[in-house]
Amino acid sequence: MTTISTEIIAVGTELLLGQIADTNAQWISKKLASIGINVHHHAVVGDNRHRVEEQFRVSNKRSDVIIVTGGLGPTEDDLTREAFQQVSGKELTEHEPSMEMIKSYYDKKGMKMTPNNRKQARVFVESDVFENHTGMAPGMIVPFENTTWIFLPGVPNEMKRMMTDHVLPHLQRLTGEDRIIKSVMLRFIGIGESRIEHDIQDLIDQQENPTIAPLAQSEGVAIRLTAKAETDDAALTLIEQSKRAILNRVGDHYFGMDEQSLEEQVLERLKEQGKTVAAAESLTGGMFTDRLIAIPGASDACRGGIVCYDTTVKEHVLGVESRLLNEHGTVSEECARAMADNVSSRLDADIGISFTGVAGPDRSEGHPAGTVFIALSADRSGKIPVEKHVFYGDRNAIREQAVLKGYELLYHLLK
Amino acid sequence: MTTISTEIIAVGTELLLGQIADTNAQWISKKLASIGINVHHHAVVGDNRHRVEEQFRVSNKRSDVIIVTGGLGPTEDDLTREAFQQVSGKELTEHEPSMEMIKSYYDKKGMKMTPNNRKQARVFVESDVFENHTGMAPGMIVPFENTTWIFLPGVPNEMKRMMTDHVLPHLQRLTGEDRIIKSVMLRFIGIGESRIEHDIQDLIDQQENPTIAPLAQSEGVAIRLTAKAETDDAALTLIEQSKRAILNRVGDHYFGMDEQSLEEQVLERLKEQGKTVAAAESLTGGMFTDRLIAIPGASDACRGGIVCYDTTVKEHVLGVESRLLNEHGTVSEECARAMADNVSSRLDADIGISFTGVAGPDRSEGHPAGTVFIALSADRSGKIPVEKHVFYGDRNAIREQAVLKGYELLYHLLK
Repeated sequence: MTTISTEIIAVGTELLLGQIADTNAQWISKKLASIGINVHHHAVVGDNRHRVEEQFRVSNKRSDVIIVTGGLGPTEDDLTREAFQQVSGKELTEHEPSMEMIKSYYDKKGMKMTPNNRKQARVFVESDVFENHTGMAPGMIVPFENTTWIFLPGVPNEMKRMMTDHVLPHLQRLTGEDRIIKSVMLRFIGIGESRIEHDIQDLIDQQENPTIAPLAQSEGVAIRLTAKAETDDAALTLIEQSKRAILNRVGDHYFGMDEQSLEEQVLERLKEQGKTVAAAESLTGGMFTDRLIAIPGASDACRGGIVCYDTTVKEHVLGVESRLLNEHGTVSEECARAMADNVSSRLDADIGISFTGVAGPDRSEGHPAGTVFIALSADRSGKIPVEKHVFYGDRNAIREQAVLKGYELLYHLLK
Repeated sequence: MTTISTEIIAVGTELLLGQIADTNAQWISKKLASIGINVHHHAVVGDNRHRVEEQFRVSNKRSDVIIVTGGLGPTEDDLTREAFQQVSGKELTEHEPSMEMIKSYYDKKGMKMTPNNRKQARVFVESDVFENHTGMAPGMIVPFENTTWIFLPGVPNEMKRMMTDHVLPHLQRLTGEDRIIKSVMLRFIGIGESRIEHDIQDLIDQQENPTIAPLAQSEGVAIRLTAKAETDDAALTLIEQSKRAILNRVGDHYFGMDEQSLEEQVLERLKEQGKTVAAAESLTGGMFTDRLIAIPGASDACRGGIVCYDTTVKEHVLGVESRLLNEHGTVSEECARAMADNVSSRLDADIGISFTGVAGPDRSEGHPAGTVFIALSADRSGKIPVEKHVFYGDRNAIREQAVLKGYELLYHLLK
């Protein structure tokens, strides 16, 4: 295998002004790590022709592969092409298929294309061009001296699509690694990173092939296993053995592999079991159903929900008894239970889930911000377990943790 | 005023593996922008002595001020000091007050200090050292050749405290800028970046003070105006004049200043006018209400909503007539209108908004993915305008554009 030194350059003044963080570099780095490619540098440079050129010269000397994101758009500030042209002496030409796509985009919208959009279809001659299926400017791979230059749009979903469809396969061929590299992520919920590391410390200490790396995630914890072998099957067998050893220790908290989210796991299980869910959401405001409906095919299992942020909506639309509300308040076990029960019957769902609590910043009904009750009404069995949690952080951290916990509870119910 | 070219270098392999994004660089950049200091480069390099040294050499040539975060800790991977020593030839010495703090930290915790912690107290001779009040390794400012080098810990709260207490005041003295710098963002919706640039091109061409910079945002487009003047009032007057000239051209699409989101503007207007809103959401799945409830104080104006992803929920919970559904389908002007009307009456809200359409990836009821109907029922006037839109992108891009368009329509209704 050839070891290649890779660098990611983001072009855009908005990054240097701190308006956004360079999450593109993070995403690309993660993908490259998963196929065993080392990233040695990230660089960010603004929309300034001279400085972009200088950065390109520095990078061209030190890296074998350079991925540039941003600066391919229609405005005068978008000068990635022009800077690389200056540095490399390569010529630009209009890419017909991309020009057609840009025109048809405006036609479909019934809008007039401003002339500066033409710029977006310009590509380097003798480059490997890939069309943009989610936006306008195409991406391209351009060899220059001993370096492979890859230009991608800065818009995350456009960049990601091109990385997955074109760039990662291209780089895998480039590395010429003759062993197969397989990498999987085992994902866990309801357990901390230090706990998981403690429980499998001896496995980590003995690791060799596959390597075992615990990682904190925005949702739970993950363990990355990376194996190298002569064949796909052999790599997968190594991973499978290591996975079994790990799940022997911490399997109770395991929910799935790779990018699959907890919501997707929940949806899959609902579909397998032919069950439907409906949600009554107070402080979470629709976030629970939103995440489920974000997944294609959610219609089979998600009936919908009632966002009952207002007390009168809890009473009049969801049918929670006013006696109960007066006696126990809306932030209570009793209210959560009635919400879950009523939403499942009113929306004719097998499972009802409810969220009621205090998102903050202020206290409410005597409870501090972060207090949340979550109830699950399953199969109209009459048994409606309720959990009380106290989450920390700002209003939205609290709301997100509540939704995540809701999916965790639902996942365990369906297990 | 001296214009200084600033660069931020983060040292840490975890960034190059994509485990975290470089949010330190974002935070520092924002702070520097607010005092008128230009950041020209961000760089990330891993825990590799040779590559850190090379990066330091490149940066020393091109920047006047270099802020380095990370690599000051106790482990072998922490090699920022050693790399700079190699590049600069400067000597290191133990900083007594910091060594005392580190010792007392371990004493207080009742733990034994491992010897490698001594490394954290090492500082460059003839540097300006500031103690770490929230952690262990001190920060320092070190002049080298014509560049000011600033070393800070990578832990965000330690870095931020040192930036605020020491680095920002130091840099303000360094620039010697005696004029006031004011910067505002004008925010627009319903207009593209290329269109806005086209419409104000002559103003951009003539710009000097304030400077005028259009920027694409995740929601709409923004224009940043940055003015310099002798007094606050004079700077604000310059900004006000420029703002007026810009809004004369594209004011129809303007919705607010600075960080305030469209949802926040909508919520503010609802509160001012004492109105409430409720949403009937099919493909958007609760995203509309979720974004409103994310804002503290939403309870005054948001009644909640019904997520009617399933047709029977549209019929039985929201009360859309089955005759209408059979005749026109759920993806129709008629259904959108009934949804908006019914959700406002059932949830007793002044305004009802509805979203029905095809999120994709597949067609539905003969409509392509991206087809969305949005209706607004206001003040029970009987008039319920409906808009049909065709959005592009994947399932979630379509859902997000629909919600954003909904806020745009609601904003114009309340204007």
